[in-house]
Amino acid sequence: MKRVGLVVAYDGTNYSGWQIQPNGITIQGVLNDALTDLLGEKIEIMGASRTDAGVHALGNVAVFDTNTRIPGEKISYALNQRLPEDIRIQLSEEVEPDFHPRYCDSEKTYEYRILNRKFPVPTERLYSYFYHYKLDVDKMREATSYLIGRHDFASFCGTGAQVKSTVRTLTGIDIWRDGDIVTIRVKGEGFLYNMVRIIAGTLIQVGNGQYPPERVKKILDACDRSVSGPTAPAHGLTLMGIEFFD
Amino acid sequence: MKRVGLVVAYDGTNYSGWQIQPNGITIQGVLNDALTDLLGEKIEIMGASRTDAGVHALGNVAVFDTNTRIPGEKISYALNQRLPEDIRIQLSEEVEPDFHPRYCDSEKTYEYRILNRKFPVPTERLYSYFYHYKLDVDKMREATSYLIGRHDFASFCGTGAQVKSTVRTLTGIDIWRDGDIVTIRVKGEGFLYNMVRIIAGTLIQVGNGQYPPERVKKILDACDRSVSGPTAPAHGLTLMGIEFFD
Repeated sequence: MKRVGLVVAYDGTNYSGWQIQPNGITIQGVLNDALTDLLGEKIEIMGASRTDAGVHALGNVAVFDTNTRIPGEKISYALNQRLPEDIRIQLSEEVEPDFHPRYCDSEKTYEYRILNRKFPVPTERLYSYFYHYKLDVDKMREATSYLIGRHDFASFCGTGAQVKSTVRTLTGIDIWRDGDIVTIRVKGEGFLYNMVRIIAGTLIQVGNGQYPPERVKKILDACDRSVSGPTAPAHGLTLMGIEFFD
Repeated sequence: MKRVGLVVAYDGTNYSGWQIQPNGITIQGVLNDALTDLLGEKIEIMGASRTDAGVHALGNVAVFDTNTRIPGEKISYALNQRLPEDIRIQLSEEVEPDFHPRYCDSEKTYEYRILNRKFPVPTERLYSYFYHYKLDVDKMREATSYLIGRHDFASFCGTGAQVKSTVRTLTGIDIWRDGDIVTIRVKGEGFLYNMVRIIAGTLIQVGNGQYPPERVKKILDACDRSVSGPTAPAHGLTLMGIEFFD
């Protein structure tokens, strides 16, 4: 028996998110089926991040246990042959038997992409949120200064989430414009349900002038979801990668 | 009666190209139907570039004649409401009654995008050609020096095309790498059938070391399609824009 780790990229457009569920096709479900088929034994993968329906990933991480004699690093090639083209393994390798990507210390990087121009661009529609009103990136950046660090992010936690604590550490937020695309890159050691999308929705309210940048401090202090901005749509969000610490 | 010009962006993935045809859904057909429906009169648009099935556009240009009293610049908004989300008008405006985008002097800009890395990236699969073997961008750039200018491009013309002359003028080719994406940007006053895709397919053969850069000169001189590289896949190609001269 060995444990194999996978780095998984996917286009979330056609999936009901990562986590397996009775109704709807999920990334986890498709991976379980393809691995079970490939290895001839029942495989159940454990993922680092249970991304929501419609969210994309370049580098989600998952592990599974197997008795196969196929070397860990070869599994990526064989598995990609059996996966639909909107899921692609980027790396496979044998890992320590006790490595679990959800319970190890790690830093995740997400990017939220906004297409900020007068008319939508069809070739961008699946991977960015189209937003018509002009965004002031400098003001958005100013607002992020209140979010970086260790805080109670209750105002940025989607309702319905059951967590013991809403305290999390954001290690960095960068925002930049490249042509018509405004990217918000968020790094943190853990995220609450919908946290990045609520941060993005709130920063958009700053960028369009609805909220002054310093309002974000008040929103954070309120610990109340009802005072922050809307949850930005799923399709603008991509889990870029996860770095694990020893 | 007035003539209205449109700048049209589309994701070509689900279309049988620009030009209307008996079988298959085309950009031109969808635009004709949406305009006819919007304006209450039979509309037939004339396009600048009849892009192939699967090719994308950020700025194709088309014109049509209409008796509507809707101002030209307002048509874009009303038309976008009636179009599927993979076609979006970027600009509409009244133009001279004798302006025809196919027969005016113009310069077209195309980009061919190659995803050059070990494994495919799902979120790039619709808008770039995945190519596994490492491409040497410097060699590709060296090869382009033979192509720029006025030449007989018979070696870069898809078979089945009926044209009086295969002489065309390429005004520029730039190639650059940004991370894993290699972009070939080609500008010219006119293009032969599949010309940009055959140039891309030939430059890929240079980039992978199959052809030395100077082979491109011999290919050009041969005026023979059979000696150039393969036609690169349609989905890597985007018509970026068209500039018209007086």
